[in-house]
Amino acid sequence: MDNTKKVFREVRADAMLVSSPDLRRYLTGFASSFGFVYVDAQESILFTDPRYAEGARTALKNSFVAVEVAQNEETVLDYIKSKKIRTIAVPLERLTLREYESLKKKKFRIADCMPALRKAMSVKSEEERQCIAKASQIAERAFLALLKELKEGMTESETAGLLEYLMRKNGAEDRSFETIAAFGKNTSVPHHAAGEDKLIKGLPVLLDFGCKWQGYCSDITRTFLFGESSDDEFKAVYQKVLNAHKIAAEGIHEGMSGKAADALARDYLKRFGLDKFFTHSLGHGVGVNIHEEPRLSPSADDVLQSGMVFSIEPGVYFEGKFGIRIEDTVCLSGGAVHSFMSTEKGLMVI
Amino acid sequence: MDNTKKVFREVRADAMLVSSPDLRRYLTGFASSFGFVYVDAQESILFTDPRYAEGARTALKNSFVAVEVAQNEETVLDYIKSKKIRTIAVPLERLTLREYESLKKKKFRIADCMPALRKAMSVKSEEERQCIAKASQIAERAFLALLKELKEGMTESETAGLLEYLMRKNGAEDRSFETIAAFGKNTSVPHHAAGEDKLIKGLPVLLDFGCKWQGYCSDITRTFLFGESSDDEFKAVYQKVLNAHKIAAEGIHEGMSGKAADALARDYLKRFGLDKFFTHSLGHGVGVNIHEEPRLSPSADDVLQSGMVFSIEPGVYFEGKFGIRIEDTVCLSGGAVHSFMSTEKGLMVI
Repeated sequence: MDNTKKVFREVRADAMLVSSPDLRRYLTGFASSFGFVYVDAQESILFTDPRYAEGARTALKNSFVAVEVAQNEETVLDYIKSKKIRTIAVPLERLTLREYESLKKKKFRIADCMPALRKAMSVKSEEERQCIAKASQIAERAFLALLKELKEGMTESETAGLLEYLMRKNGAEDRSFETIAAFGKNTSVPHHAAGEDKLIKGLPVLLDFGCKWQGYCSDITRTFLFGESSDDEFKAVYQKVLNAHKIAAEGIHEGMSGKAADALARDYLKRFGLDKFFTHSLGHGVGVNIHEEPRLSPSADDVLQSGMVFSIEPGVYFEGKFGIRIEDTVCLSGGAVHSFMSTEKGLMVI
Repeated sequence: MDNTKKVFREVRADAMLVSSPDLRRYLTGFASSFGFVYVDAQESILFTDPRYAEGARTALKNSFVAVEVAQNEETVLDYIKSKKIRTIAVPLERLTLREYESLKKKKFRIADCMPALRKAMSVKSEEERQCIAKASQIAERAFLALLKELKEGMTESETAGLLEYLMRKNGAEDRSFETIAAFGKNTSVPHHAAGEDKLIKGLPVLLDFGCKWQGYCSDITRTFLFGESSDDEFKAVYQKVLNAHKIAAEGIHEGMSGKAADALARDYLKRFGLDKFFTHSLGHGVGVNIHEEPRLSPSADDVLQSGMVFSIEPGVYFEGKFGIRIEDTVCLSGGAVHSFMSTEKGLMVI
């Protein structure tokens, strides 16, 4: 997947230089912890260090992107200087003060390629959507396999580790983020770090997880009961969160703002006084990054477009009691939202 | 583990402000994806968003660090401004151009707290060493359990996932980095991404892995044969890499430079013409980050001191054939290197 030309076409500069790992991954299709992607009208080059050179050459042999070895930024800037480049576009918000000073020292004029990157990355090609669909299927298959393995006494950390292993066993490259596994009152912490608490009958369980396939992420959250519970409040709130999810999924359409999308779920929850417990935003774009454009939040002006892939994840959290979040990764196309997920969203008792 | 005062003591500024997740983790002992740590002579505050507030308050209730909610940098800078702070120290090399501009807009004078952070972080307290020891034990226990589970036909990705699961089952909080599992000729790529290649009898296997315990990392690499092999070159090179490892471990002492430490292994390999296949450095510090100070490389002037924890990991890579790396995490104390690892480093045939 060589996206260098797609992005460079939208950039107003003689050349473009990108050093962030996620952006390099998007532009070239190759993952590495160190490197620079250089693009101008004639060529695209991935500069990386000897650790990655062999892997990069193999991975990119059918792409337009050439691979060169560089141990540091200096080498890369000297190469660019030798090409008589004057204005160079960089992702301005990622630029460190040091990088800025290095560019200034070499007398480059600086432009911003982040808007072009955001724009290109937020709307997924058919190929990209297929990767996300596959990453979603793998995550769900692993989740269903996990449900059969859950036992009293398992820790949150063990559960998270087992789910991640099952994703890889089902073909995932890796998890797309650190799996959240929360039992009991820990579910009320939206980003709970899986710990040593043990699974007990009757507890709510919240799992927020996803995996990568060909570099693209999936993101899903399910909240369920491990054994029957007499907690009617939990069940009632679950139904409200599920309704909020469905109302958002049915109401989101092309041309809508991220703010308006978020309000679909938030306004519904407000009718029951639950909006003040919905302490995060409705959703976020999903791609090579687990969090990217568009944002679906109370302050987001992002306009939702066909081809965008994002999460829908309303949540309600009662501090010290329980939390419920129901999340799918979806795609907006043909005027409507299509979920990549097929597992049950109704309350499950395992 | 509240390290805020330890670091601030070495900083020449009215206050210190840190936003990088790893540095926040080191300073407060609490992990979060968003936040700021503010320290002055009177107080230490972790500003974080509502997602983490409950968790942070619970985790830091016995620490000097207070928790406040802040949704953005603006709120934090206004708070600092209200305290009449003039010079504020930040980790300069991490500073983005935007953050720099925000500080300048508020008329703060900027100082650098990165040297103080590096210095404090590179020398581990007894408590920190115990965490790394525990993370090392867990990783090794998981490795030994994995060896019993290895079967022909398992993929690299599945193997990596199983090892990570076994680390969590043995008490790890999480992996300390993405596990490298390489089979056959993939072992010749130092940072190979575990893929779909399958395990076959007679192949070399390289596993580079580690886990976290109470936020601290372990790092270990073992290369072994899956079933007997007639590749005498592999066996001969293995012995050389092992010797290089031992020579470094025995020769490293306090007051030595990172450069001199690296040369112990590199000079030995040179005697057999193997130094040109040793394409990375000998080692790196290990702490809350998997890569930190000190560096043990051909260009490192870092002086090795008592209490430092680092990896020793000579490696030799024959492109397209095989690679061998043997790595322990060790501590320098009482004038000598002590490994945190106890598993076999001699060539194993599984």
